Amino acid sequence: MDGLTARDRNFAARVRDSFDRQNAMRLIGARLTKIEPGYCEIELPYRDELTQQHKFFHGGITTMIADSAAGYAAYSLFPADASVLTVEFKMSLLAPAAGEMLIASARVVKPGRTLTLCDVEAHAVQDGKKTLVLKGLETLICLHNKADR
Amino acid sequence: MDGLTARDRNFAARVRDSFDRQNAMRLIGARLTKIEPGYCEIELPYRDELTQQHKFFHGGITTMIADSAAGYAAYSLFPADASVLTVEFKMSLLAPAAGEMLIASARVVKPGRTLTLCDVEAHAVQDGKKTLVLKGLETLICLHNKADR
Amino acid sequence: MDGLTARDRNFAARVRDSFDRQNAMRLIGARLTKIEPGYCEIELPYRDELTQQHKFFHGGITTMIADSAAGYAAYSLFPADASVLTVEFKMSLLAPAAGEMLIASARVVKPGRTLTLCDVEAHAVQDGKKTLVLKGLETLICLHNKADR
Amino acid sequence: MDGLTARDRNFAARVRDSFDRQNAMRLIGARLTKIEPGYCEIELPYRDELTQQHKFFHGGITTMIADSAAGYAAYSLFPADASVLTVEFKMSLLAPAAGEMLIASARVVKPGRTLTLCDVEAHAVQDGKKTLVLKGLETLICLHNKADR
Repeated sequence: MDGLTARDRNFAARVRDSFDRQNAMRLIGARLTKIEPGYCEIELPYRDELTQQHKFFHGGITTMIADSAAGYAAYSLFPADASVLTVEFKMSLLAPAAGEMLIASARVVKPGRTLTLCDVEAHAVQDGKKTLVLKGLETLICLHNKADR
Repeated sequence: MDGLTARDRNFAARVRDSFDRQNAMRLIGARLTKIEPGYCEIELPYRDELTQQHKFFHGGITTMIADSAAGYAAYSLFPADASVLTVEFKMSLLAPAAGEMLIASARVVKPGRTLTLCDVEAHAVQDGKKTLVLKGLETLICLHNKADR
Repeated sequence: MDGLTARDRNFAARVRDSFDRQNAMRLIGARLTKIEPGYCEIELPYRDELTQQHKFFHGGITTMIADSAAGYAAYSLFPADASVLTVEFKMSLLAPAAGEMLIASARVVKPGRTLTLCDVEAHAVQDGKKTLVLKGLETLICLHNKADR
Repeated sequence: MDGLTARDRNFAARVRDSFDRQNAMRLIGARLTKIEPGYCEIELPYRDELTQQHKFFHGGITTMIADSAAGYAAYSLFPADASVLTVEFKMSLLAPAAGEMLIASARVVKPGRTLTLCDVEAHAVQDGKKTLVLKGLETLICLHNKADR
C-alpha cells in the first residue's frame, strides 16, 4: 500500500512518547529506530536474558517487538485523540533467531476507521547477514476519543 | 483430546529442565506451575516492567508465556531424544490483561509425529477474578534425534 | 463461555433466512442443522464435486462451512438490525477430510459490541466414526444499523 | 524471496495436471492462469452461485482459490515424487469481494524441506479496478516419496 498519509502531522512524536511508556520494551532493551506514516521499525540487541533453551532469541521476544512495531505502524495513521489495541496476530517463525541483533518491521496493508491490518517481519542479523526469522499479519483496532495518555 | 500419554515417563523432569534454561522466562519472572502429558501451565506475577503504554501486561509478554506453555505441552509427549520448535501461532487478545497475575495454559489438540497443534489460553487474575485475555492456536514441530540439551 | 443469551428472540429464524440466501452453501449442498445462542452447526454430505486432487473434501470447502458456522454463531447474538462480516480466520487442517459427511461447528468464545471471537471445528464422519479435521479461530464484526436484508 | 528455482523442470505440467483433478475448482469455475517457480495465480469469474447473503463472493470461496494458489506455489518447488498438503492458513478479509472476477495469487516466502510458507492475496476486479480483498499466510507440508498421482 503506497501513499499512506498521517492525519496528525505530530504523529512521530506521539508514537515515540507512547513507545517510551512501554516498560516491557525498556526491560528487553528494544529501540524504536524508524517511524513513518504506516511504517515502523524496532531493533533489539542480543542479550543472554532474552533467549529460549537453545540460546536463540525466544520466539515470544521476537513477537513482542513485532507486535509493538505493528501497533505503532497503525497508530501513526490514527487521529491524535485515539489509541490503539492489538486484536490478534498470526506469526510464523521461519528460522532460529540467532545473531547479535533483531529488527522487526511492520507496514500497514489496509488502514481502516475501526480495523487496520499490518504485514510484519523480523530479521536476525548475524555477522552482518540478515535472515528472515518471522513473518506475520496483525490486526489492530482504533479506539476513537480515547487518547493514548 | 483425552487419554494423551507421554512416551517418556521422565517427561516432567525433562520439561522443567528445559524451562529452567529459558532465560527469557527468568527475565520476566514466569514460573512453570503444572505439567501433565499434553498439558502445561505457566504463571507470571505482575511487575511494572512488563507493561505496555496503558500499564496492562504487554500483549507480547502474554504471548511469551502462552508460547512457552504450548511448546512444553507438546514437548511432554515427545520422545526423550527430541526437541521442540514453534512453527507458528495465532493469538487473539480479548481484553486488556489487567491484574496481579497472568496464567497461560496450553493443551495438545492433535499430537503428531512431525507436527502438533495446541489450544492456548491466558487469563488475568484481578482481585481473585479470572478474565480470559488470550485465546490462540499454536503449531509445534518435533525435531527427532536432536535432544533438547 | 456459558450462559450466552440472544438479544433478539427471533434469532433462529433470522439466521436460517440469511443462510438460505447464501448461494454458495446451496451450490455445495450444505445444511444448517443446529442454531443456538452463540452456537451453530452446518453439515455437508460428500459429493465428488467437492474434492481436491486426492479425492478428500477440499480444504477450502471445509473452511467454507466452518466460516459460515462461525458467522452464524456470532450473528445469533447480534441485535435484529445488525449484520455480520468475517474479519479474519485461522484454520489448521489436522487430517485429510475423508468420509461421507463433514460437520462444522462454531461456538462464540468472546462476544463483543464490535468484535466477536469464535472457536471452530470440523469433523469428517466415515463409517460412523468422527475424526477432527479442522480446528480454527475466527473473528467477526457486527455492523450495527445495517440489517442483513 | 527472489531466485526460487524448481527442482523438477516439468513442474508446470505437474501442477496443471494436479489442478485439473481438483473437482472443487471445476465446480466453482476456477482457472489456473499462471504458474512459475514459487508463484501461482488462480482466477474465478463471478457467478450468482458463489455468493454469500449480500451477493458478494463468499469468503470461503475466496479462501478456496487462495488455498489452492498457495498449495501450487509450494508444490511447484517440490521434487516430482512428492505431494503437498495444507497445514494451516490465516486469512484476513479486507473488503467485500464484489465484482466480475476474483484473482488469487500466492508466493513462496520460505521454502523448506518439510514446511513451506506462502504469502497469499486475492483481488476483486470490478469495472477494471482491482481491490485487495484478502491477505493471508499459509503453511504447506511436503510429503516426500508420495507422488501426487
